[in-house]
Amino acid sequence: MSRNVDFNKFLVFDGAMGTMLQACGMKAGELSERYNIEKPEVIEKIHRAYIDAGADVITTNTFGANRYKLNDTGLNLNDVITRAVEVATKAAKDKLVALDVGPLGQLMEPYGSLSFEEAYEAFKEQVLAGALAGADIIIIETMSDIYEAKAAILAARENSNLPIICTMTFQEDGRTLTGTDPLTMVNILQNLGIAALGINCSLGPKEMMPLVHEVLKYSRIPVIVQPNAGLPKMAGSETIFEITPEMFAAYGRQMAEAGVRILGGCCGTTPEHIRELKNALIGLKPVKTHIERITAASSSTCTVTLGGEVKIIGERINPTGKKKLKEALMKDDMDYILREAVDQKDNGAHILDVNVGIPEMDEETVMVRAIKEIQGIVNLPLQIDSVKPKVIEAGVRVCNGRPIINSVNGEDKVMETIFPIVKKYGCLVVALTLDDGGIPKTAEERLKIAEKIIKRAGEYGIPKEDIIVDCLVLTASAQQKEVKETIRAVRLVKEKLGVMTTLGVSNVSFGLPARSLLNRTFLAAALSAGLDAPIMNPMDADMRDTVRAFNVLWNHDKDSKEYINAYADSKAKPENNDNKTNKDL
Amino acid sequence: MSRNVDFNKFLVFDGAMGTMLQACGMKAGELSERYNIEKPEVIEKIHRAYIDAGADVITTNTFGANRYKLNDTGLNLNDVITRAVEVATKAAKDKLVALDVGPLGQLMEPYGSLSFEEAYEAFKEQVLAGALAGADIIIIETMSDIYEAKAAILAARENSNLPIICTMTFQEDGRTLTGTDPLTMVNILQNLGIAALGINCSLGPKEMMPLVHEVLKYSRIPVIVQPNAGLPKMAGSETIFEITPEMFAAYGRQMAEAGVRILGGCCGTTPEHIRELKNALIGLKPVKTHIERITAASSSTCTVTLGGEVKIIGERINPTGKKKLKEALMKDDMDYILREAVDQKDNGAHILDVNVGIPEMDEETVMVRAIKEIQGIVNLPLQIDSVKPKVIEAGVRVCNGRPIINSVNGEDKVMETIFPIVKKYGCLVVALTLDDGGIPKTAEERLKIAEKIIKRAGEYGIPKEDIIVDCLVLTASAQQKEVKETIRAVRLVKEKLGVMTTLGVSNVSFGLPARSLLNRTFLAAALSAGLDAPIMNPMDADMRDTVRAFNVLWNHDKDSKEYINAYADSKAKPENNDNKTNKDL
Ligand SMILES: [Zn+2]
Ligand SMILES: [Zn+2]
Ligand SMILES: [Zn+2]
Repeated sequence: MSRNVDFNKFLVFDGAMGTMLQACGMKAGELSERYNIEKPEVIEKIHRAYIDAGADVITTNTFGANRYKLNDTGLNLNDVITRAVEVATKAAKDKLVALDVGPLGQLMEPYGSLSFEEAYEAFKEQVLAGALAGADIIIIETMSDIYEAKAAILAARENSNLPIICTMTFQEDGRTLTGTDPLTMVNILQNLGIAALGINCSLGPKEMMPLVHEVLKYSRIPVIVQPNAGLPKMAGSETIFEITPEMFAAYGRQMAEAGVRILGGCCGTTPEHIRELKNALIGLKPVKTHIERITAASSSTCTVTLGGEVKIIGERINPTGKKKLKEALMKDDMDYILREAVDQKDNGAHILDVNVGIPEMDEETVMVRAIKEIQGIVNLPLQIDSVKPKVIEAGVRVCNGRPIINSVNGEDKVMETIFPIVKKYGCLVVALTLDDGGIPKTAEERLKIAEKIIKRAGEYGIPKEDIIVDCLVLTASAQQKEVKETIRAVRLVKEKLGVMTTLGVSNVSFGLPARSLLNRTFLAAALSAGLDAPIMNPMDADMRDTVRAFNVLWNHDKDSKEYINAYADSKAKPENNDNKTNKDL
Repeated sequence: MSRNVDFNKFLVFDGAMGTMLQACGMKAGELSERYNIEKPEVIEKIHRAYIDAGADVITTNTFGANRYKLNDTGLNLNDVITRAVEVATKAAKDKLVALDVGPLGQLMEPYGSLSFEEAYEAFKEQVLAGALAGADIIIIETMSDIYEAKAAILAARENSNLPIICTMTFQEDGRTLTGTDPLTMVNILQNLGIAALGINCSLGPKEMMPLVHEVLKYSRIPVIVQPNAGLPKMAGSETIFEITPEMFAAYGRQMAEAGVRILGGCCGTTPEHIRELKNALIGLKPVKTHIERITAASSSTCTVTLGGEVKIIGERINPTGKKKLKEALMKDDMDYILREAVDQKDNGAHILDVNVGIPEMDEETVMVRAIKEIQGIVNLPLQIDSVKPKVIEAGVRVCNGRPIINSVNGEDKVMETIFPIVKKYGCLVVALTLDDGGIPKTAEERLKIAEKIIKRAGEYGIPKEDIIVDCLVLTASAQQKEVKETIRAVRLVKEKLGVMTTLGVSNVSFGLPARSLLNRTFLAAALSAGLDAPIMNPMDADMRDTVRAFNVLWNHDKDSKEYINAYADSKAKPENNDNKTNKDL
């Protein structure tokens, strides 16, 4: 049985294992995991040194203990991990043991050939072995690819009950190797049900500091930082690190004062660094930070936060009423879908809705394939759109980022099915203001349904900031009287509930001529009532123009910079303009 | 001294004078007014007969006693009127005497050559003579041209303290000879400070009934009806009327039950008709009607009621920033202004703003000339726009209709000057939400100014329905942060004060490219917040399109009839439309 871990106190992790092994005579090219089997006493001695230095947690010597890295080494993965946990547990006594899970050492799709499912399987065996051997914590660390981190986290959650910590490693440009920025990392990881997240390796504490502040700005879960002992420098043939234990500890204290809860060392750090760090924290109390919740969807490299500037959700990947897309899906023609994705991005979409529901195809398979293809080409957050919960779950699982689920509504059965998926995968969810009684006519009734959905979501631990309310656009040709109720509903929902809102705008004009004109007029009214993220066709110039103009009027496009940029050249002006007033002036 | 007149009770007027004179031997072509001088005893006898029949009011024999009709008759106008009042007063005893003022018998501009000012002078001498001779009431009657009625009413108000009653005469098509409909008549007359208004002559009571109901629907002052004794028919060489006293009385009772307060007879009616009428009212109590106030501007033939469908106030007749209009005004080129007026009407304007303020010209003279010219050509209500109270008063005085004054604001000095004009001429007034402190930044402060203006207006007897609040559009290029405050202010003013609103929309885009796009987007937002009557350029297709679309979305254009009519033909579609969704469908 693993021990309870109290994340409300400071936790000091140990420092480098590799650096210590090299000091103990490990040669370049030697596999450190082999020591678990062949020289466990060396590992134990290093663990002891860290325990003696004051570490609260020591990390098992299993950074590379996965099926890909141990392949052809003659080592048995299970043995390596089991022995590593055993020796750490022996050394730790009353201290905690963290199962170290490093990157698999293979590039994942779309950069390489490793699929999400394969990565999951590899992590799964590590987790199963480590948990069985008695680790207290799982630390997934030094991740460069957040997609790999997601696979590892899901494997850890689904195959153990241990608290999970995840750290990623950033380059000096402020992004991981595959392009994830701190906000995106936090937005994806903190919603995946882990205990702590943070930054490790690559940089020294000084270079990490701005990144740490970024992470602290957004993270509502404890933040861990494990810097290197400065940047590595070559001294002759040796790599040396220039940050002394005292300097390291001083930075550590600064970080703790800024709100970091868990500290440790990565490459180049020694028990002396940890000893000084531990001492530096004496008398400090963990900082309680208040983090405003935001409503943000992420791809692996880009986070879109709703509120402020209008966010466009591209509606084009949806076969409803679209013959060509339907045909493309039937012929398994992913190029057509990808073109739609790229076109929408090029025309200003911030988020892409993905709906592949046609009766003739296995929607789950098509959804997974479509998401993988799209996220390989376009770096926008996705909105997974299906009426089938199974399809939604398959989609959000393989989504490289934090997607939006489209949708839940006020029906009990739907909420019971969708909310567990929203919670488990840490998604946002669109909430339609309808229930078993259909779409209510009045704004007040739709507000009531929105309230009910938000309350029920709360029972699943889903905050209202993760809900985007859709007050539902009716068709003027069929329900003209109720059309403006939607605008009123948006305003009511915004004022009374303070949640983000979306609307599928173009529905309003169905069956009428000059649809674009009705759509753009409705859009302007809805935006001014509090619509944050219209679901629309970004290729409709009228709609795009309206969004740009609204961003000027609502002071989102400061000093009208984007607007002037788009229209200052008269050729780019809307063609419809025969405003004589202007000509006269 | 005239006696007090109680309009809270039924008042029964007398019947025809001419019919009775003919019965007494007056020949065709004889001037009835001559009887006042030459055979006053005949007149007195007729008056007595009506008094004996139960009339509460008798009408002096002065229908044609004006300088134009008495010209070349050898009769002295003053004598005719004085003697007529004297003989009536003698016959009336404790009953009331109404000075009869009929049409001048000359066509007024633009149909004829009689100017508003000339008409005023002619009515003035009648009123002065009649009031001096001791009439209790002035009844301006059988008016076909509401412009003439307005001249007569102003002459009566400005040259006597007597209560004024005004009736107009309608054709079977429901309009007066110069095209005034009942709503327009009521909207203009009841705001000119008269005691009662109504319908007389031309039609019998049966034909009048629907018109009477129209008048009762809108009139907040007592309504008078004086029908003929049916439609005139030729019997040989004689004109006879077919409605018997009993039938006449039955209709009279119906009208009284519907809300008519004052009844009498016109052509063909006799003391017998009045006697039966009087008897028919026994036991009836005057009906107290509750008339909802509306906010409506009128030309002589057309009333525009704010609320519901968007009303466009054309902004083009305003030299500010318009070089060509300035030049036209300098060269006294009225054709240019008239073209602007016609163009705006043709492009959907409901009301025309008229501003002729350039420093180089005498604004009062130009304003009066411009209004006369415009109302001769275009039948839209006008908005008289000037910063000079004198110009405004001159403009509203000669305006043939119920105009809007543009504008008053929250400054004490301005309110003290403008409100008396608004009240005297029964105008609507645009109230700008600014005061000595300039335009407040927040919506709440602008609401406060609107409240202050409405309260102060109330002290002048001006109801809030006669005030159109303008929350003032700021320029995005200079005050981007405050742009949306205007939209909020419109919503607040609408919700808290329930008044009509206007906005000069195009100001928002000043100094930015693609002005029309910003204008139309702002317009849609403002309309959805409660803007009733944008001041805008009707020739801007984008703006017009937006108004049409909004009328669909807000259910003003029922079943989208106008919209489909405008756009069903694809060539009339907005050009800016490259909505691929639509093409796909
Ligand atoms: Zn490291
Ligand atoms: Zn008559
Ligand atoms: Zn008459």
